[in-house]
Amino acid sequence: MRDLANDRSLLSINSMTVKPWSLEQLVEGCTRAGISAISPWRDIVQACGLPRAAKLIRDHGMTVTGLCRGGMFPAADEAGRRAALDDNTRAVDEAAAIGARCLVLVVGGLPKGSRDIFGARQQVREGLAALLPHARAANVPLAIEPLHPMYAADRACLNTLAQANDLCDELGEGTGVAIDVYHVWWDPQLHEQIARAAGRILAYHVNDWLVPTTDLLLDRGMMGDGIIDLRAIRTTVEAAGYRGHCEVEILSAKTWWKRDPDEVLRTCIERHQSVV
Amino acid sequence: MRDLANDRSLLSINSMTVKPWSLEQLVEGCTRAGISAISPWRDIVQACGLPRAAKLIRDHGMTVTGLCRGGMFPAADEAGRRAALDDNTRAVDEAAAIGARCLVLVVGGLPKGSRDIFGARQQVREGLAALLPHARAANVPLAIEPLHPMYAADRACLNTLAQANDLCDELGEGTGVAIDVYHVWWDPQLHEQIARAAGRILAYHVNDWLVPTTDLLLDRGMMGDGIIDLRAIRTTVEAAGYRGHCEVEILSAKTWWKRDPDEVLRTCIERHQSVV
Repeated sequence: MRDLANDRSLLSINSMTVKPWSLEQLVEGCTRAGISAISPWRDIVQACGLPRAAKLIRDHGMTVTGLCRGGMFPAADEAGRRAALDDNTRAVDEAAAIGARCLVLVVGGLPKGSRDIFGARQQVREGLAALLPHARAANVPLAIEPLHPMYAADRACLNTLAQANDLCDELGEGTGVAIDVYHVWWDPQLHEQIARAAGRILAYHVNDWLVPTTDLLLDRGMMGDGIIDLRAIRTTVEAAGYRGHCEVEILSAKTWWKRDPDEVLRTCIERHQSVV
Repeated sequence: MRDLANDRSLLSINSMTVKPWSLEQLVEGCTRAGISAISPWRDIVQACGLPRAAKLIRDHGMTVTGLCRGGMFPAADEAGRRAALDDNTRAVDEAAAIGARCLVLVVGGLPKGSRDIFGARQQVREGLAALLPHARAANVPLAIEPLHPMYAADRACLNTLAQANDLCDELGEGTGVAIDVYHVWWDPQLHEQIARAAGRILAYHVNDWLVPTTDLLLDRGMMGDGIIDLRAIRTTVEAAGYRGHCEVEILSAKTWWKRDPDEVLRTCIERHQSVV
């Protein structure tokens, strides 16, 4: 059995980690660093142009561990929900075009003016159900990513792995979960819910929780610089049968986005080996 | 049955809401505003001096809905845990001296250098068990307050009402929960766990979650200015039999702490009637 943490062929770089880079720079930078997997956000894929992006990725032999992101299902009215579904349909097509192993879903928070988080969750359920036939037909698994509760209002009203597992149980084939340690590390049920996710873990994201954290969105830490017990979580993820990549996703305006991206990649490689 | 939201005699002001004020100013300001309940933090009680604080509160006929705060149990070594227990013992005595209806506990996060949140939770359990005999003897109920998961690392490793309820089940008489909407509004199990807390709700704290939230600690909103469904939560809290105060606790460096505290109290009264 290969060891997730020490095998560079199982390291993937999310484009947010090296935000200054275009898709071309990401693919070339990873190739230089001996990294063979990426997970781009849609903005850099679209900026590159879809056919060119697909060719670039193919030519470099890059694995695409996921496309970030679909989701944002809840809306204040039917037109808004329809627009969200259309956008998600395009995201599925983009994921298929670049051969992404899954489409990562940040499901969305409360519609503007709403205080009804339970209603928002129902909208997410319905949006997923509506998207699923197209995703199945395109052979793009939908990776439901629970986000930290501090994002419940404005980014994702699914905030525990239990909720994501429940949705997968309900929706069935073509759905799975993305587990990001940043979002779930605090969860009292974490290890039980990872075990429950066996067979449906589509993505595994690593980074760290800094103390103090000075920004709700853009102050994530490099693995090893915070307080997440990465080894314990990895052990449980592997025990659940996951054999995919460790994807490094670090949104860090004040530290890592200011560094030379080549240096950031070297640090990712080093930490992936030493602490993940 | 009295209605929590429309009865000023059931409004309590946490001292953090009017942070510029001393205990004297808090007691006198609330009296001017026709508010008869407060919940002070220990710093302003200590600054006033305990006997003087007790007399001031008594002379003004103030109800003390809670003393904030004990807790912070986990520590890196035995000496640290001993110091925490000693400090909590003093907090119980202070709560008793001012006739507080409970001691609110922010249980603490990870000890310095630790990544073991499950170990921290065990330390909390042991710290509470060690404190409880003294609290029972002093007739000061311990209000276990689950904090939002964004505080799991540095303030409280108990992050759901389910965890607090579990601890109360385990520890029994003399324990209960403090429910702060800011910390629990996102919880998928919120309403079930409030129902489960029936008979042990020692404090009910109101405020609001702003969108966007720009600071993890000091950007809480006034009731009505955010996205928490305050009415729905109050309905469940009342259905669980709670007949105590609504305590307004707003940590707001950029907005409310900059306003005239008398104006803040007027706004609390108005919002308590209109949206809580």
